[in-house]
This record gives sequence, C-alpha cells and structure tokens, in this order.
Amino acid sequence: MSKSLRDFKTAASRKDFLESELKINLNAISGFNFSEESVNGKNIENLIGSVQIPLGIAGPISIRHAPQATRKYYIPLATTEGALVASVSRGCKAVALSGGASVEIQNVGVTRSPVFKTRGITHSFEIKKWLGRNFGKIAKICESTSSHLKLNTITSSLAGKNLFVRFSFDSKDAMGMNMATIAVTDVIPFIEKNTGSSCISISGNYDIDKKPAWLNFIEGRGKMVWADCTLKKSVVREILKTTPEKIADLVYRKVLTGSAMAGSIGFNAHFANIIAAIFAATGQDLGQIVEGSLGVTSAEVTEKGDLYFSVYLPSLMVGTVGGGTNLPSQKEALNIIGAQDVLEFSEVIAASVLAGELSLLASLSEGTLASSHVKLGRKGR
Amino acid sequence: MSKSLRDFKTAASRKDFLESELKINLNAISGFNFSEESVNGKNIENLIGSVQIPLGIAGPISIRHAPQATRKYYIPLATTEGALVASVSRGCKAVALSGGASVEIQNVGVTRSPVFKTRGITHSFEIKKWLGRNFGKIAKICESTSSHLKLNTITSSLAGKNLFVRFSFDSKDAMGMNMATIAVTDVIPFIEKNTGSSCISISGNYDIDKKPAWLNFIEGRGKMVWADCTLKKSVVREILKTTPEKIADLVYRKVLTGSAMAGSIGFNAHFANIIAAIFAATGQDLGQIVEGSLGVTSAEVTEKGDLYFSVYLPSLMVGTVGGGTNLPSQKEALNIIGAQDVLEFSEVIAASVLAGELSLLASLSEGTLASSHVKLGRKGR
Amino acid sequence: MSKSLRDFKTAASRKDFLESELKINLNAISGFNFSEESVNGKNIENLIGSVQIPLGIAGPISIRHAPQATRKYYIPLATTEGALVASVSRGCKAVALSGGASVEIQNVGVTRSPVFKTRGITHSFEIKKWLGRNFGKIAKICESTSSHLKLNTITSSLAGKNLFVRFSFDSKDAMGMNMATIAVTDVIPFIEKNTGSSCISISGNYDIDKKPAWLNFIEGRGKMVWADCTLKKSVVREILKTTPEKIADLVYRKVLTGSAMAGSIGFNAHFANIIAAIFAATGQDLGQIVEGSLGVTSAEVTEKGDLYFSVYLPSLMVGTVGGGTNLPSQKEALNIIGAQDVLEFSEVIAASVLAGELSLLASLSEGTLASSHVKLGRKGR
Amino acid sequence: MSKSLRDFKTAASRKDFLESELKINLNAISGFNFSEESVNGKNIENLIGSVQIPLGIAGPISIRHAPQATRKYYIPLATTEGALVASVSRGCKAVALSGGASVEIQNVGVTRSPVFKTRGITHSFEIKKWLGRNFGKIAKICESTSSHLKLNTITSSLAGKNLFVRFSFDSKDAMGMNMATIAVTDVIPFIEKNTGSSCISISGNYDIDKKPAWLNFIEGRGKMVWADCTLKKSVVREILKTTPEKIADLVYRKVLTGSAMAGSIGFNAHFANIIAAIFAATGQDLGQIVEGSLGVTSAEVTEKGDLYFSVYLPSLMVGTVGGGTNLPSQKEALNIIGAQDVLEFSEVIAASVLAGELSLLASLSEGTLASSHVKLGRKGR
Repeated sequence: MSKSLRDFKTAASRKDFLESELKINLNAISGFNFSEESVNGKNIENLIGSVQIPLGIAGPISIRHAPQATRKYYIPLATTEGALVASVSRGCKAVALSGGASVEIQNVGVTRSPVFKTRGITHSFEIKKWLGRNFGKIAKICESTSSHLKLNTITSSLAGKNLFVRFSFDSKDAMGMNMATIAVTDVIPFIEKNTGSSCISISGNYDIDKKPAWLNFIEGRGKMVWADCTLKKSVVREILKTTPEKIADLVYRKVLTGSAMAGSIGFNAHFANIIAAIFAATGQDLGQIVEGSLGVTSAEVTEKGDLYFSVYLPSLMVGTVGGGTNLPSQKEALNIIGAQDVLEFSEVIAASVLAGELSLLASLSEGTLASSHVKLGRKGR
Repeated sequence: MSKSLRDFKTAASRKDFLESELKINLNAISGFNFSEESVNGKNIENLIGSVQIPLGIAGPISIRHAPQATRKYYIPLATTEGALVASVSRGCKAVALSGGASVEIQNVGVTRSPVFKTRGITHSFEIKKWLGRNFGKIAKICESTSSHLKLNTITSSLAGKNLFVRFSFDSKDAMGMNMATIAVTDVIPFIEKNTGSSCISISGNYDIDKKPAWLNFIEGRGKMVWADCTLKKSVVREILKTTPEKIADLVYRKVLTGSAMAGSIGFNAHFANIIAAIFAATGQDLGQIVEGSLGVTSAEVTEKGDLYFSVYLPSLMVGTVGGGTNLPSQKEALNIIGAQDVLEFSEVIAASVLAGELSLLASLSEGTLASSHVKLGRKGR
Repeated sequence: MSKSLRDFKTAASRKDFLESELKINLNAISGFNFSEESVNGKNIENLIGSVQIPLGIAGPISIRHAPQATRKYYIPLATTEGALVASVSRGCKAVALSGGASVEIQNVGVTRSPVFKTRGITHSFEIKKWLGRNFGKIAKICESTSSHLKLNTITSSLAGKNLFVRFSFDSKDAMGMNMATIAVTDVIPFIEKNTGSSCISISGNYDIDKKPAWLNFIEGRGKMVWADCTLKKSVVREILKTTPEKIADLVYRKVLTGSAMAGSIGFNAHFANIIAAIFAATGQDLGQIVEGSLGVTSAEVTEKGDLYFSVYLPSLMVGTVGGGTNLPSQKEALNIIGAQDVLEFSEVIAASVLAGELSLLASLSEGTLASSHVKLGRKGR
Repeated sequence: MSKSLRDFKTAASRKDFLESELKINLNAISGFNFSEESVNGKNIENLIGSVQIPLGIAGPISIRHAPQATRKYYIPLATTEGALVASVSRGCKAVALSGGASVEIQNVGVTRSPVFKTRGITHSFEIKKWLGRNFGKIAKICESTSSHLKLNTITSSLAGKNLFVRFSFDSKDAMGMNMATIAVTDVIPFIEKNTGSSCISISGNYDIDKKPAWLNFIEGRGKMVWADCTLKKSVVREILKTTPEKIADLVYRKVLTGSAMAGSIGFNAHFANIIAAIFAATGQDLGQIVEGSLGVTSAEVTEKGDLYFSVYLPSLMVGTVGGGTNLPSQKEALNIIGAQDVLEFSEVIAASVLAGELSLLASLSEGTLASSHVKLGRKGR
C-alpha cells in the first residue's frame, strides 16, 4: 500500500484511511467521549475511535464492615453476556437478606521479577544473601521513583544460571505494574554492578503477570481477598429457588471434583464473568482478568441447615487511579461503586464475585440456567 | 432505599435514579450507539449506558495462506495499556518483512460437560458404553436444536459417583457456548431416562469454561491455533533492535524456565494482552480471555543464524456471529479484520499474538521495554 | 585411588574393595538370594549385594468380580513405615464386611514419545497426517520387535519445531517400557526417512515417564483403574471407629480443598504409601511410584446413611513379568497375590489403595492416627 | 477361612500359614537379616520376611565443598532397572573430570499441616493473628515433645471455613514426619481451646506429604537442594559421547518444552530413577519418592563452548536416623556414602541426580539409550 496508518496524525484521518482502504464504514467506532490528547501514547497508539460495551448495574451488594455496619454498593458490569447482570443481582439480594457479606483482604502488592544470569548456583546464593543485606538501599532506589511506591519484600528462586528476583511493592491506589517496572528498572544497574550478574530481562515470568500460575495462587499477587456469607435456608429457597444441600453438593461435584479432573487452577464456577465485567467497566487492565479469575468457591450446610458460602480470590490486580481508570465512562463507573480506596474497591469485587457464584450455582442446581439460556439463546440466534 | 433499579424501565431513567441516589454525574456513560431493544435481555440487563474503550489499529499482519499467497489484515485493539498497539505493529512489520506468518488450525469445537450422579463406577462404565452405542441418537437430539450445530465427539471421565460427560460441537461461526448449552439441555432427559443416572448440573467444570485448566491445554477447546515465522537476522536487528540469539535465550530463561518455576499453565510472555484487546474490540466473551491466553511461545536460531519464532494457542473460544459481535462498534471492528469465517478470524488472532510476543520479547531482551515504560509511566503518573 | 570398582568382577570382590577402601563393614548387604548372573546387566551393574526391606502381609482384600463372585487376595507390602500394614488390613476388613470392592479398568497401555525436529508447524501438520495414513506400516514395524507388543494409538502434539509423537502400546503382562523403547527405536528411521524430520530424542517427555503430569492424569497411562465400595454405617462405626459423615467431610476439606490449595495433582490421602509398598514387594519400577500415586479419592454419604467410597488411579504402570518381577522374593510376593494377569494385578492394587485410603481417613477423622503415631513415634525415637 | 493371619505371632508361622493357605512356596521371602523384635510395630506389622533388592554401587561422585576441597562419595543404588548404575557412574566420571559438582542447600524442614474448621473467614483471620502472637508458646509445646525438634515457621492458608496451618520444623538428622506429627498433635488442643476452632484432621493436605504439588515445588519441603557443574567440551565428547550444544538443545526441547506440553511438575529427565534407588538403598520412606522427584534440570553452552549443567530438587524429604535407616543393610548403605549429617547426605543425593541426568540426556542426544535398551531389553525378554 502506498500510504500507511503511520502517515496520519488524527483518529479521524486514520478512520477515513481505513474506510477507503477497506471499503467499509466505521461510523460507530468513530465516536468517543475522551480527548485524543488524553489517551495518545499513554493508553493507546493509532487511535481510530472507541468500542462501546453495554453497561448494566447489578446489586446493590451489601458488605458488613463491622457487626452493625453494613454498606451497599451498586456494581457496574460491562458485558455482552445476557443474564449475567440479572444473576449477580439475584445473588446480591440473597446476600442482603442474610445480613451482607463479610470480607477479608491481604495486600500482597504488585510484583515485578527480573531474571538475572549468574555464574551458577553458588553465585546465585551469594546474590540472595547480598539482596537480604542491601534491602534498605534497594528500597531507597525503588521508592525514589515514585512517592506512591513502597517496597515490601524481595524473594528469589533459582534454577541453573537463572536467578529470579521477585520484588513486591505497595503501590497505593494504583494497580502499579508500570510503577513497579520503573522502580525495578532503576535498581537493576545497582544490583548488576554490585553482584557481577547481568539482567536478561526485567520480567522473568516469575512476577508472574497475566499468566495463570500456582505462584500467584499460593503466595498471592496484588490483593488476596476473601468474602463469605451465611444464607438462611428460607432465603436460599425463596430467592435462589434451591436448597443449601444442593449448593453444597454441587460445590463438591462440580467446583472441586470437576475442576480437579480437568486439571484446573480455578476451583470456582465463573469468577471470570464477574471479574471481566467489572474490569471492563472500571478501566482495569483486561489482560489481568487471567490471574484475577483464579480462586476457590466453598460451600457447606451449617448445623442449623443454613448455607455457608465463600469465595477466595488470591491474585486481584486492580487500581482506582492510573491506567484506564481516568477515562470518562470508566471513572464514572468507579464513582458508581464509590469505594474510598483500592482496598474497599477490591472488597466490593470479591463480594460481587460471591453473589455471582451463589446465583449461578443455584441456577445450575435447579437446571434453570439451562432453561433461561434456552430462552436467551433462542433469542440470540 | 424506597425505590430500586427494578422500578425503572429505561437506561435513561435508571441513570437518573443512580445519579440522584449516589449524587454523581453519569454523562459519559449515558451515551451509547446501540438500541436498548437490541441488547436488553440478550446481552445485558439493567442497562444504564455504555463504557467506551479506546480502539487503536495495529498491523497490518501478513499471513501466508499459501507459498505465494499472503494476505494482510489490520488488527483492531481495544486497550488502555500504552505501547501495546505500537508494539504489536512493530512485530507485524518484522513478520511482513519476513514473508508473513504461517498458521495451522484444528477445530476442536465448543464443549459443554454436564456431571451425572451415578450409582458408582460400574454404573458409570455402563453409561460410557451406552453413550458410545447411542452417539447417533444423541447427535440427532442435539443437532435438532440448531441448524448451525454439529456434535463432534462425546468423551467422559469419572471419579466416585461423578460421571463427567464432555460434548464437543462444531458451532460454525458462533463461539457456541449458548448453542451447546441448549443442545445438551435437550439431550439430558434422554440420557437420564435411559441410564438411570441423574444430571446434577449441565456444567460439571469438565467443559472447562473460563477457568485455566490443563484439560483445555492438552486436548484443546474451541480452536487450537499455531502460528510461526522465520525472521531474517537483519530484520531482527533493524526492526526489532536485537538478535536471534538474544530472543532464543530469553525464551529459554523467561518463557520456559521462569514459567516452570512459577507453576504456570502459560508458557508465553503476554498472550493475554493481545487476546484481551482483540476480544474487547470484536465483541467476544471477555471471560474467555482466561483460556484464550493459555499457550506456548517457542524460538530458536536457525542454521543460517535467523530466528524461528512460533506461538501455540490451545483454547481459543471465539465467534464472528452472536454474542457481542452484533453490536455496532464491535461489528465494525470485525469488518476491519475482514475474515470470511471464524477459522480465518482465529488465524488472524494467532498471527497477531505472534507479532505481539515477538515485539515484547525483543524489547525485553534489549531493556527498551523498561525505558519506554519509564517514559509512558512517568507520563502516566 | 589406585584401584576402582571397575577392576572387580564379582559382588564379593567389590564388597571387599569397598570395605577396605571405606573402612566399613558390609556383612548385611553381602547376602542375597538371587544369582549374580541373573541380574548382572539386566537388572543392575556393579552389584555388591542386596538391601532387605521388611515384608508384611495385609488383607485379604475382597474384590467383587461379579455380583455373586468375590475373591480374596493377600497383599504383600514391603515397607519400613509402622502402622501401614495394620491400617490397610483394617480397611480390608471393612471392605470385606461390605461385600467387597468393585473395580473397573481401562488398559491405556505403555507410552513412548519421541520428539522430532521439523521445519515448523506446517511441516509438523504434514507429518501428523502422514502418521495417520501410515499407522498400519508403523504398527507392523513396531510389532515385529516383540510378539508381546501391539500398537494401540499414535497421538501427537506440537510447539514450534518440536513434534511430540506419543505411541501407546499394549504390552501384555509386562510393564513394557523397554519393549516400547525398542519398538519406537526401530520405527524412528522409517519416520525420519519418509517425513524429512529428525528425531532429537526417543523420549521428548510427552510419554510422560516418572514425572507427575496432567497428561497422564487426564488421558491415562499404563492402566487406569477405579475401585469403589459402599460401607454400611455400622461397619464404619465398628471397624473404622468413625462415621460416614466424618469421612465425607474430611474428603471435602482435606482431600479436595486442601489439595487444591496446595496445587496438587494428587487428590488423595496417601496413595503413595500403598503403591510404594506393593511396588517394592513385587519388583515394579520404583521410579514409577511417582505417576502411580496420582489420583482422586471420593466419598459421600448415601441416602441410607452409609458411606460410598471410591478411588481413581489414572496412571498405573505395572507388570507381572519382566523387570524386577523375576527376582526370587519379588516373584514369591506376586504369587501371594496370585493374579492371573496384569489386569487382575492392577485391580488388586486399586482395591488395596481403596482400603488404605479408607483406613487412614478414618484414623484422621478420629484423631487416632495422631495417638498411634505418638506411640509408634515414641517407640521410634 | 477358619484361621487368619492375626492368629499367628511370628514371621515363620505366618509364612507357613500363607504357604499352606495359598499352596505356594515362600523360601526366598522367609530369609531376613534383621530381628523381628526390632521391626515389629515400629517398621511393619504382620511380618513374614523380606524382599531383597539388588544393590549396585555407582560413582564415586565428586563434590566441591570449597574451591580446593572436593570429596568423593560412593553411591549405593537399589534397583532392578538395568543400565541405571552404569549410567550414573558415567555421569560421575564426567563430573569428576570437571572438578566436581557444586551444591547449595536450604533446610526448609519437615511440614505438618492440620486443617481447622472455623466460623468463617473473619474467624480464620483472627486465628492467623493469634498464631503470630503465640508463636513462642506454640514452639515451646511442640519442642517439648522431642529434643531433636525445632519449630521454624507457621504459615497458613484459608478457604471457606477451612484454615490450613502449616508448621515447619527442623528435625535434625531425622526425616521427621512422625516427630512433626507428635508435636502438632500435642499443640492442637492448645490452639483449639484458645481460638474456638476445631481440628478436623492433623493433616489437611497442605503439608503436603507424598503428593506431587506446586506448594512444595515453590516453597520447598524438607531440603531444597541445587547442584551444578561446568563440563569441558572435551569431557562431554570423550566421556559422554555428545556435545554441549546437543545437551542444551535437548533440555530446551524435551525437559522444558516437552514437560510443559505434558502439564508436568517435573522438568527433568529421570530424577525419579536416582531418587528411588537411593531411597530404597538407604531406608528412606519410599512414598516420598513422589515429592523427591520434583524439580528442574538446566543446561546451557558457555562462551568457551563448554557445558553448564544443573539440577534443582525443591522437596527432598530424607533422614540419616529413624525410619528404615536403622535396618542392617540400609544402615550399611548409609555408611557407604559416609555423610556426617542429613545435609551432607542431601547434597550427595543432589549431585548423584546431576550425574544421572547428565548421562541419560547424553545417551538420548546420541540415540545410544535406544541401542543399549535394545540390548538390555532383548536380554530382558
């Protein structure tokens, strides 16, 4: 082709070029509610417009921040999958009628893990010791790159001449991947110079970012979050149209045994649906849906015959500032939730996942997912 | 709250309710380019508007459909991650200068896997045999639910009283999850009646949908796609600013050894970034970014000193019709690619992932990711 | 050292050399009940004697070969772990009082998987097709190497220039690893010559032998075996000193949830103990304890309040001829079991594992493992 | 049967009973070189005799304990697999000619992990905090059970009402599983009483013992051990009959890519063979061959064209006292190695595994494994 995209400087001109080049119409894409300047380079290159994803509201979800203090949050879900918003809302209703969900959180932090080439295992062990002795200096260099960054820990693992050093940071309300990358970039020369090793890559896949991995499941990444709720059997019957026994049985057969037979890292029903919809709505990094969907759903019948239900999300990488959170509609979606910081935001996500798991498992236990999908599906095609 | 979302019937009224309820402004969200009727129930519930994600164009990517027949495709990427579009484009340029990427595809099909409760292992084995003998009847029932559906295989796995039956369908150009759900729903009564088993859930997590799992990695799901390309060392040097040796070394240390040390199912650098951006742009189910990001990146230096580079995606669940593909901007994004069917679309995705892997690994091997991220990052915060 | 082991030709002379060289006494090792000729080269090199492992008898274990036909088998266990034989015996008693264990088996066969270097994915796909077209010729070459060998299937997987071809054989009563290696060795030149590929290694770790792997768990290797039994609640109470509810609860918390949290491929309590003791007793390849210990234990309370209990072993590599089965004490141990072929032998192993799982889980659910270990342990140290 | 094994009090009488009962001859089994008293209850029940496994000597293996201080160790291997001893010996020779292997070790310690049932996630978090505050008291109780036991760390993980508490102990020269069980048994009441939780089982599979699991791979168990060596290209050519390039290429294709494609936790060639043979020879717990065989083999060509080779064993559970190490032939086998403590013993195991990996990969890279197996195999059958 004589001309190329690189020859155009505005979204409109690129759009025009593609339309004539490909003989297609890009009217829908051409509209957008953010300024080109605000996104160029920072969020995207070769901008031609925007993609619009339908936004629905689920909930509100009730969270117990203290025995007598529950708060309700509306949940913005950007999705094209029919029934998801309705299903999460039904779960929220059941949770609300049960006094709300409890949440617990552990702030592991964002990790970045360069791989260094050493002279061998003995050299790698010397470096491990050196890193321990020089934690203070390393933290100082890292933290000088941003007032929002704090180095929490340095751990390492080695095989052959490969030393994987995992830096874990508190990045305040930002997801922090870029901040961590900048900080580690600045500290690598200091490590190389003092240890005689050479950094092969600022990421050695021991971070491990956007790949499903047991390291993140076991040691956590970003935020580890738990949520649980005990649902009265009457609520389970009236709202969820099933019984505590059926839900617990389904968790045993599907969520645990079925996932085990499939060799899965995810022992849940559909964390990914809720995670993806909240991530898309609030401007999170969609690549991190992968690790955000890891986790375990637990259920058991209490002595009183009620349903204890819980979810565990070991690797939630989210932020309330930076990345795509500054875009107009994404920022508004965050405002709908109204969390005061990234920890509260993470708790709302976990509670929303709880509601979504509860509702889908209820439908599955009654076979109503099938029927509703028949309806939706038939309409769909 | 006296009133609730359920009391409102239009996106506008729900939006107004939330604005007054939460004392926030939802101007950006309130605009959307699709009709409420077209999405209500089918794609979403409780619609209040849309979220806009910036759309950039990478490529074009060149694919060799035959020794002398390469075709170029522009790649629409919906993302908020700076540098992604530029990086994929750089990879595309290197691929184009190397004669294009080759692709291979295997259409495993969409799977749905109910879990049946049986009387035990002996009963389960009887059912396995019965399923084999009755494949024709089962296929007839399944295929009667849609003219676009064909039952390919039935496999099963068992533990205790749990029999997991995995139905695999060809769903033509649709991703097919709903079609498969409908078909299996209709055939379950036939199976229960004739085998004395009872279906506990239409999904027993042996499908396995939206969870990272070895079953999908090993046996595949949706489309298994491979792409490869041999890049001249001059192209690697001039376009990618690195050497074939450095890329191959990085694949050994980071992609293979690092992923192994982290217990990952993903042996790649960042499949998820490209998968997520294409999925968001073209109306795919964002929950399936999870399995779509599984896979392996391979690299080696050829005898001539050039770079052989390849990617393998075992579990790509995509469609060119149905779901979110009917939305205006998403449909236009699909038109930008211009694939004639879902197989060609899948091949373009794999080739795009190849380009993205190539470019990021090149940056990492030279430490330029770091510097560029410093730049972008600093601008970012 | 002036002299070395290689300078000696008999076990006695090597033993004398080591005793003087190391100033130690090797009386116990020096005795053995097999002939040097029979083991030299075939089973071992540099023989100096033998190691004696205590052999205990558990059981008998009752297996239901038909509704009215149960048979009892004594179980030889070579172990140094106190309580194992007694524990398995207790499980056997509970199974016997419940009508015996049912078993199901699938003979997947021994696999050998060379890795071929190809020109890339397109070439690899051509070879895949060629392998399909030439299955008959390939089988003929493989089967010409042994009258006891039959080629069942050829499957393959590829990444980059690596094509992993998995040959699966029926090796009659032999475990068959060597037979498979010989057969594949003879067929490799035929494949290389006709496909233009080159075999890098006769094993490309896609076999996958003696490593824990999801491929063997999901597709099976050697024999896939299942066993189950329904135990009356009275038997659970009187023999196992616990309740069906406690066992089922423990399977949910420990075997399923605990294993999931630990990222395990084994969803069981201690398959490895029974597998290792039977393997050592009967001359199996001890390296294959690794894959033999994979599997799942299931339990649930029946409507009558009884205990349904089951085990699944996906990758049992065993033989009743060849390898160490020809040694005097090992051959006698096989005679104690008295299985007519490798399938019956495999079924006995699975039923023995069932008994062992049942008994340990019962002890754990009552805390009696602890106390008994205190006793044994205190005696131990 | 009128009489049963339980009616007999001596190995001889049990043997006689079985011989008449089963009409078989148990002469070979009837002989043993240990006293019944010494093993009854402590190592085994229902003793009828012993199984003899051929013992061969490999090596010696050279280990560099300091730049100028290498020491040689003979390696006792109990195996029935022809070629193993010879192959390990060849690897030892290559290592010796290269200045010996370097080793590094980290003493993680033996772990025992009870699962507690709590009131939910909030309660579990309170307990986590309580465990942190009461580490001293807990250690005191645990350590009061044995003068050889020291509590190193307490970590925990939770899902639903399940709290998995992982206690890690230094058990001196003992493998320590029983000691840890005793200690944890004694401390559980203290934890239950003060936290209002109830212990469901002293093992919740988060230990995780005798199951292959990522938790042990990533955080280690028992001893984490590394070994490496740089082999001159001349040594690789003359002793191993191959080239550094071929070994490195094989590690890339088979050990890393092949294992990844198979979903393995073991990224090595045959750790299990060497581990199993040393464990059987020295009286280790054969069930722990499972976790002992986890690990990674690395190889790369140095700038000088030599071969850098390394192994990593994350979960080696071994002891030089207790268990089966007190048996006559097993004790002598330990004396052949002559390690002064369990750390040195572990290092010898790792170096032996290095030699075994090196030799097998060399054979595979040259196709000589095949030919030798043909020879051995043909003799075998």
